[in-house]
Amino acid sequence: MKAKVLIVMGSDSDLPIMADTGKMLEEFSIPYKMTVSSAHRTPDRTLKLVKSSEKNGIEVIIAGAGAAAHLAGVIASHTVLPVIGVPIASSPLEGVDALYSTVQMPPGIPVATMAVGKAGAKNAAIFAAQILGLRSAAVKKMLNNYRRKMAGEVVKKAKKIEKGR
Amino acid sequence: MKAKVLIVMGSDSDLPIMADTGKMLEEFSIPYKMTVSSAHRTPDRTLKLVKSSEKNGIEVIIAGAGAAAHLAGVIASHTVLPVIGVPIASSPLEGVDALYSTVQMPPGIPVATMAVGKAGAKNAAIFAAQILGLRSAAVKKMLNNYRRKMAGEVVKKAKKIEKGR
Amino acid sequence: MKAKVLIVMGSDSDLPIMADTGKMLEEFSIPYKMTVSSAHRTPDRTLKLVKSSEKNGIEVIIAGAGAAAHLAGVIASHTVLPVIGVPIASSPLEGVDALYSTVQMPPGIPVATMAVGKAGAKNAAIFAAQILGLRSAAVKKMLNNYRRKMAGEVVKKAKKIEKGR
Amino acid sequence: MKAKVLIVMGSDSDLPIMADTGKMLEEFSIPYKMTVSSAHRTPDRTLKLVKSSEKNGIEVIIAGAGAAAHLAGVIASHTVLPVIGVPIASSPLEGVDALYSTVQMPPGIPVATMAVGKAGAKNAAIFAAQILGLRSAAVKKMLNNYRRKMAGEVVKKAKKIEKGR
Amino acid sequence: MKAKVLIVMGSDSDLPIMADTGKMLEEFSIPYKMTVSSAHRTPDRTLKLVKSSEKNGIEVIIAGAGAAAHLAGVIASHTVLPVIGVPIASSPLEGVDALYSTVQMPPGIPVATMAVGKAGAKNAAIFAAQILGLRSAAVKKMLNNYRRKMAGEVVKKAKKIEKGR
Amino acid sequence: MKAKVLIVMGSDSDLPIMADTGKMLEEFSIPYKMTVSSAHRTPDRTLKLVKSSEKNGIEVIIAGAGAAAHLAGVIASHTVLPVIGVPIASSPLEGVDALYSTVQMPPGIPVATMAVGKAGAKNAAIFAAQILGLRSAAVKKMLNNYRRKMAGEVVKKAKKIEKGR
Amino acid sequence: MKAKVLIVMGSDSDLPIMADTGKMLEEFSIPYKMTVSSAHRTPDRTLKLVKSSEKNGIEVIIAGAGAAAHLAGVIASHTVLPVIGVPIASSPLEGVDALYSTVQMPPGIPVATMAVGKAGAKNAAIFAAQILGLRSAAVKKMLNNYRRKMAGEVVKKAKKIEKGR
Amino acid sequence: MKAKVLIVMGSDSDLPIMADTGKMLEEFSIPYKMTVSSAHRTPDRTLKLVKSSEKNGIEVIIAGAGAAAHLAGVIASHTVLPVIGVPIASSPLEGVDALYSTVQMPPGIPVATMAVGKAGAKNAAIFAAQILGLRSAAVKKMLNNYRRKMAGEVVKKAKKIEKGR
Repeated sequence: MKAKVLIVMGSDSDLPIMADTGKMLEEFSIPYKMTVSSAHRTPDRTLKLVKSSEKNGIEVIIAGAGAAAHLAGVIASHTVLPVIGVPIASSPLEGVDALYSTVQMPPGIPVATMAVGKAGAKNAAIFAAQILGLRSAAVKKMLNNYRRKMAGEVVKKAKKIEKGR
Repeated sequence: MKAKVLIVMGSDSDLPIMADTGKMLEEFSIPYKMTVSSAHRTPDRTLKLVKSSEKNGIEVIIAGAGAAAHLAGVIASHTVLPVIGVPIASSPLEGVDALYSTVQMPPGIPVATMAVGKAGAKNAAIFAAQILGLRSAAVKKMLNNYRRKMAGEVVKKAKKIEKGR
Repeated sequence: MKAKVLIVMGSDSDLPIMADTGKMLEEFSIPYKMTVSSAHRTPDRTLKLVKSSEKNGIEVIIAGAGAAAHLAGVIASHTVLPVIGVPIASSPLEGVDALYSTVQMPPGIPVATMAVGKAGAKNAAIFAAQILGLRSAAVKKMLNNYRRKMAGEVVKKAKKIEKGR
Repeated sequence: MKAKVLIVMGSDSDLPIMADTGKMLEEFSIPYKMTVSSAHRTPDRTLKLVKSSEKNGIEVIIAGAGAAAHLAGVIASHTVLPVIGVPIASSPLEGVDALYSTVQMPPGIPVATMAVGKAGAKNAAIFAAQILGLRSAAVKKMLNNYRRKMAGEVVKKAKKIEKGR
Repeated sequence: MKAKVLIVMGSDSDLPIMADTGKMLEEFSIPYKMTVSSAHRTPDRTLKLVKSSEKNGIEVIIAGAGAAAHLAGVIASHTVLPVIGVPIASSPLEGVDALYSTVQMPPGIPVATMAVGKAGAKNAAIFAAQILGLRSAAVKKMLNNYRRKMAGEVVKKAKKIEKGR
Repeated sequence: MKAKVLIVMGSDSDLPIMADTGKMLEEFSIPYKMTVSSAHRTPDRTLKLVKSSEKNGIEVIIAGAGAAAHLAGVIASHTVLPVIGVPIASSPLEGVDALYSTVQMPPGIPVATMAVGKAGAKNAAIFAAQILGLRSAAVKKMLNNYRRKMAGEVVKKAKKIEKGR
Repeated sequence: MKAKVLIVMGSDSDLPIMADTGKMLEEFSIPYKMTVSSAHRTPDRTLKLVKSSEKNGIEVIIAGAGAAAHLAGVIASHTVLPVIGVPIASSPLEGVDALYSTVQMPPGIPVATMAVGKAGAKNAAIFAAQILGLRSAAVKKMLNNYRRKMAGEVVKKAKKIEKGR
Repeated sequence: MKAKVLIVMGSDSDLPIMADTGKMLEEFSIPYKMTVSSAHRTPDRTLKLVKSSEKNGIEVIIAGAGAAAHLAGVIASHTVLPVIGVPIASSPLEGVDALYSTVQMPPGIPVATMAVGKAGAKNAAIFAAQILGLRSAAVKKMLNNYRRKMAGEVVKKAKKIEKGR
């Protein structure tokens, strides 16, 4: 099946975080492509990736990067597809640098920023699903089921803790 | 025309910021509804707003709030529609509080967070348009035109500054 | 005995921190109920929990959560019972996000915020006891005893260190 | 009528902030005493204030201070009455110093910390009312009325903004 | 005379800051070109600017930008000329965002980052002169003279203050 | 009378802050010398100032500076006289940069750091007096009087506010 | 020999940091007393400690504490002896809370603040020695020797690294 | 061959970070000298190092330091050679202190600041090479090759991750 979401990470060292984005998209049966491209080390490759993605039917791009995390912003500057940014804590500044570099985009070129790290990596996939769910009843249903499943797990854990005493 | 985007702000004092979201949506001819509802002062109203929005065909919700900005997160907890958050600098902590409260959502319930303040308010509208543009060629065209217009303005200003010396 | 304090945590992963709240309440013989409920993953359960707590004679609610810690604020928006918030350091931002999300409540809906992490978890219980101690001479006495015990321990440790040289 | 709440501020320059605490207590018809005492410049006066307050029937103490805001913590170290802290932004660090100095209390001696500045000053009064409301049906009723009034104002403003377009 | 330094700013609103870079280069008689180009709004223009600069003999590029200040990093990704970054305080986060976005470059693509704001804008010019001064005795001499002039001014002001009492 | 304290500021723009240091020293009748010297613009002058101060009987050096405030540290590296640092908020980072640059001295070379800005400028003088007061009964007496005066002012203001209602 | 310096720590868990203060004082043969006293858990003990120290000939007080580190400030409020504060990183906020609580003292009551953690613990002792060195030629000589020793070690390490390649 | 770059670190404990600067310079066949000198513990040695470096043909100085990282600034105050600063995360403040102390230089004396830690250590070498590459075709070629190599590695890793699923 043709990929609808492109996951790009700035470095292969971001994989332990960004792998969660892929797993979560699989939970919603959303076909995706995952690759590495650096805003700074491979600017041309990044540009081509964006352009080819648009042609190949990609509808949402998710970019995860650390430190001066320009990746999502650079991608967003080349497309009007929705771009979701995942800041990664990979420098001594522990992700505040990546968060500010991803979220503080100037007027005109938005990046939909998620939480720093694993929570953000998962939520990027869910947010992509929420976008695609606007015109896919199937995805929307899976999203609602996922919500129910999450709620159910909270209740189960609550029971356990309530008994635990 | 039926509103496709709901803009909610936590307090009417957020209007000078969030008015830009409305203006920008008008630039893309996207019908919207704008209102005030507080996550904390009117929790029931906020819940009803979300539920009625879903029924009335709203596709994207934009929430702007300051301080412990729970509004976007609370809305997101009640819907699988895409929710966009605009942190507003309205406390002595100058928006860092609103940014962290909006972006650091736990796994499961994403909020697409924009930049703090006016830049974020504008970009929330553009990002909503980018979502709607996935299935509206007209919106997509307007987005591309807007990009060209912005680029043209940069060039114009560049000319002026280059001559200025 | 009927619970007088409700301890809610946003996730069962908060238990290693929030367990200290329970232990401390036991120190003051204050009956409590401890459970899990997420502001975002189980908003309805959270609402019901608050409403049933009020009916069942709960007098103080303690809520511990990490990241965009909305739990205490969301609970506070549904009750005029005193709500005590414990920010938990569970994201790469190490608790500053949880602190700001808990303490920076807008005018009208206060959350009594404690220190980030274990210190806050213990103090939440002590503060609840201080509230209940206003009309319970027994609790007040236990609080004063606890103070004396703490002071005694400081003196003991001081002796040890003074000799240690 | 005998004061039930003591409002202390560290400096008379904090009055423009802390005056709101007094006004809000008046809203709930709660008699209070307001004064100045510095943790550092008048440590003995502060200690006496706490001791005499306990004797004179004060049930809640609210302390507002800026910079290295030790006032609430110092007061809390001398009483088991509930102490509410209001951090004030009065140094170039804009209140982060006051917030950390107020909220990060060590295990054993809690300070119920409110938001930095005016929001916190108002909420300190409301939280005091919530404590007193546990045994005063009259105060509890006023709190619920205040909530309703706030909600009503939000709706009124929402109407205005909805029409405004 | 052919420009040796290119000054780029991300927006014409950065001119009040970046004008100081130009003035300082004039102090060292270093010919320069000053223009506007946005990393995000005009990515292609930015790329062309870098490529044409290299061809036209530009030896140092100075980039000033605010918020998620990607400009210097994006330019650096397209050239091995030395790139100097000036973070500008133009968002509610007051320049910390621009600083982190400029300085926290990943291994491989350095940006020589200056102080936030006016100090950095001046120093960018001086640092460019220091680079060019490595092979221009004239520039080196002017740099040393400038140092002496600065030192002289300090002494003059010191005299005035010493007398002032 | 021979100066016992040297006040150095990094720039004459720091005078509105550092003038308070001088005034406060006068309050304790401590003779002082006040001048300007930059750690960076006049490193040799700074070194000479330290060396000549030692010879001329200076006993305490107070250094006020902003931004990357190296002045106190650089002075401390050239003398074993006590050096007191006053961080000044003169950059967009609002004094956090000056605070960290002043206080975070490596093991071996201490700088006694005061609060950012005016509070610190005053306290630097008082701390110098406290050092000199160790062997001057006159200074010690003035310090105790000053404390009493401060306490008296607090009481006066307290009276005013207590009546004000 | 009679102690000239009092080292107080807020908790015995601070000993691994504050032990370095003691060792360093021994390096300068300065007799000291080391103990534990909490600003919050043992306020009366802290007050007595200060008062008895003054009587017993203590000339400098060093206070190390973490989190809302009030200890140094509280001690300073009760004496005009020089008080040196050592902020300790013992909470999830990693010492920024202790730094702000220690250094941001209001005008009138200075605390000479050292670096966070071990560096500060050592420097507190050295600074105390610098104060005592003002009237002890022996201590001054030891301080100068220590400086030379440190410089010698740097040179030795430099040699090793220079050869190492 | 005569060294063209001087690498100075403030302490031998910085070697694990700064060794990367040396390795990277070797990658570009740039001869260098590496040593230790502290701005604070060996101020005279630091000054001599700068003066002798200038005489011995050093063209770029790289200084790495942690905490109140004055080293780069102090060096820059004694030379008009380009000085590159590497902030090192060696205190509980995790490098923010070193970053601010290095980058926030006052107007007149620039330090070209790199990222905190290992990324900055590598980039300092690359930036030095970019400066030297302005008049060495050989270095410029190596820089371009290095860029290509980096890009090639990104592509290789991308392939692996793309297949990995």
